[in-house]
Amino acid sequence: MSNCFLISEKKVKQNIQRIADKASENKVVLRPHFKTHQNLHIASFFKDYGISAITVSSVKMAKFFAAAGWKDIFIAFPLDVNEMDEIDHLASQINLIVLINHPDHIQALHRLNNDVDFMIEIDAGYHRSGVEVIDYEEVMGLIKSSYETQHAVFMGLMAHFGNTYISRTKQQILGIAYKSVNRIADLAAKVERETGQFVYVSIGDTPSISVLNQFDRIDELRPGNFVFYDLMQLQIGSCELNDIAALMQCSVVAINPKRHELVIHGGAVHFSKESLDFMGVKTYGHIVKTDVGNNTFTGDYISSLSQEHGIVQCNEANFNEYKIGDKLLIIPVHSCLTANLMKESTRIV
Amino acid sequence: MSNCFLISEKKVKQNIQRIADKASENKVVLRPHFKTHQNLHIASFFKDYGISAITVSSVKMAKFFAAAGWKDIFIAFPLDVNEMDEIDHLASQINLIVLINHPDHIQALHRLNNDVDFMIEIDAGYHRSGVEVIDYEEVMGLIKSSYETQHAVFMGLMAHFGNTYISRTKQQILGIAYKSVNRIADLAAKVERETGQFVYVSIGDTPSISVLNQFDRIDELRPGNFVFYDLMQLQIGSCELNDIAALMQCSVVAINPKRHELVIHGGAVHFSKESLDFMGVKTYGHIVKTDVGNNTFTGDYISSLSQEHGIVQCNEANFNEYKIGDKLLIIPVHSCLTANLMKESTRIV
Repeated sequence: MSNCFLISEKKVKQNIQRIADKASENKVVLRPHFKTHQNLHIASFFKDYGISAITVSSVKMAKFFAAAGWKDIFIAFPLDVNEMDEIDHLASQINLIVLINHPDHIQALHRLNNDVDFMIEIDAGYHRSGVEVIDYEEVMGLIKSSYETQHAVFMGLMAHFGNTYISRTKQQILGIAYKSVNRIADLAAKVERETGQFVYVSIGDTPSISVLNQFDRIDELRPGNFVFYDLMQLQIGSCELNDIAALMQCSVVAINPKRHELVIHGGAVHFSKESLDFMGVKTYGHIVKTDVGNNTFTGDYISSLSQEHGIVQCNEANFNEYKIGDKLLIIPVHSCLTANLMKESTRIV
Repeated sequence: MSNCFLISEKKVKQNIQRIADKASENKVVLRPHFKTHQNLHIASFFKDYGISAITVSSVKMAKFFAAAGWKDIFIAFPLDVNEMDEIDHLASQINLIVLINHPDHIQALHRLNNDVDFMIEIDAGYHRSGVEVIDYEEVMGLIKSSYETQHAVFMGLMAHFGNTYISRTKQQILGIAYKSVNRIADLAAKVERETGQFVYVSIGDTPSISVLNQFDRIDELRPGNFVFYDLMQLQIGSCELNDIAALMQCSVVAINPKRHELVIHGGAVHFSKESLDFMGVKTYGHIVKTDVGNNTFTGDYISSLSQEHGIVQCNEANFNEYKIGDKLLIIPVHSCLTANLMKESTRIV
């Protein structure tokens, strides 16, 4: 197979080290989100940093990592009440945490025969999913109704600050992250006062975790993408170009001198169809040259994707250097989606 | 697993029947593109219509279907010269046809020890890949240089009229298809006159094949998507709503009364990130109700996707009918990309 997803072991480990150090300095738990890589080999790297608790985004993924020996898993995706049998079975095997945001979720927890902890999903400003951070009564209602369940125990509050993705500088990320942390911490304090119970607070998103250095009032971090980073994270301000640890390698299969275009074997079934307005163009991935781990942009980029084809638009000067069969190295827009599609063709180097 | 890709066997067979009849009335070969489904069970349906020759879009896919007993495979993707060993091995097992568009491709064919036929990729107006249909000299150059290879035989010309995808009516599709057919047929006739050799002409794309009824001067049809169809094909004018044979089923996991939004377990890792401007909105999939195979739009649609989440924007009246745990049926924008992602979770009903 000539197209593959190339992972730099050295960079992955540097990225883990950086965030693991930050977590340990702040005495918070790092529970990395494994949806980014979904790879048992990369998962094993985390063990060297003392990590045994992980996050996933589906029951299917939880089963995959549980089968590989991971025993403490948070499914950080709202409960699908159609999957209670699978969840119950998993809960008999591992320490399982689920996520809820609605009274019907609590009803479904009544059907469990094995113990789970649950977190309540809080919308701290992203407005995708979760109970709004100002809806204190709703949060208390969920907690109180859970007291009647036999096997489900309220653990705490979680949020994903996905609105950091509209940032374009570190300072903008910090602006959103500070506000969001304060909101969820205030809510947790209020719930603690009323229940007399400790409320565990878990936050996610790679941009916030990458730029925040202090985590007062936070108990747990759930970043995922930081292990690879990508073009989107670079644009947001979460990382530097040389932190990016995952590149697609694709062969040139056609050349068009009139349009200064290359056709590569790399399409929507490899990259997904995530695009980005980046350095003045709409891109599905940017071509780099790599010299001993030092990435530099060529200026050439993927301007369109169909199922298996990618079209690379080139600078005129670069264009003449390319030939049929060249293997291009490409930073994907969103490495999680690329990793998901390239599961069977990932190479760690 | 509660989210899955539901395929209607009855509709798939009706779709195959319609195009197989058309091919047989016109005495052309139907070589369906199996990239759409990549599914051995669906592949087996085609045998009942006398189909034994197929199209795929990668060496990997060719190996998959060859291993399942398919013996006549056209890899309708430009040759990746880094894969010559795998191609040579495949050519020792099956009747293999490859696609070329550049003199370096011919050079690579010298390295084969087993016989392959090759087609020359022609750009008949789409401008993605291939030798421009007016570049007669370039086509002849490729053919002549192939005479020196030991195992590669020139078979004919192929084109994919991907520019039909900008159509919004059947008449627009016909306008593009007629012009493109004439261009490639004229080129083939000219090559036949010079070489004295029969030139086989193969055309692709579901829109053209769905609406054309006569195929004079064409030898082979390679549509793929017609087996399922989808929202994009409906918009283009290739099919009717009730021809669509593939629906995603996704659970409702959160409900937001303020925004009339649902959150479903269906994200970019299920649908890919293909979007469409359809009926006045940007959609990643439209919700339908189904009554004995009769699909009707609800008006509700996926307005955004992240990795595992989909946000469904609802009409106010519909919104109040939905509850946590409901299983929505959704027409994907591009069924090929959804099928690729849902390979392990496809259910034929």
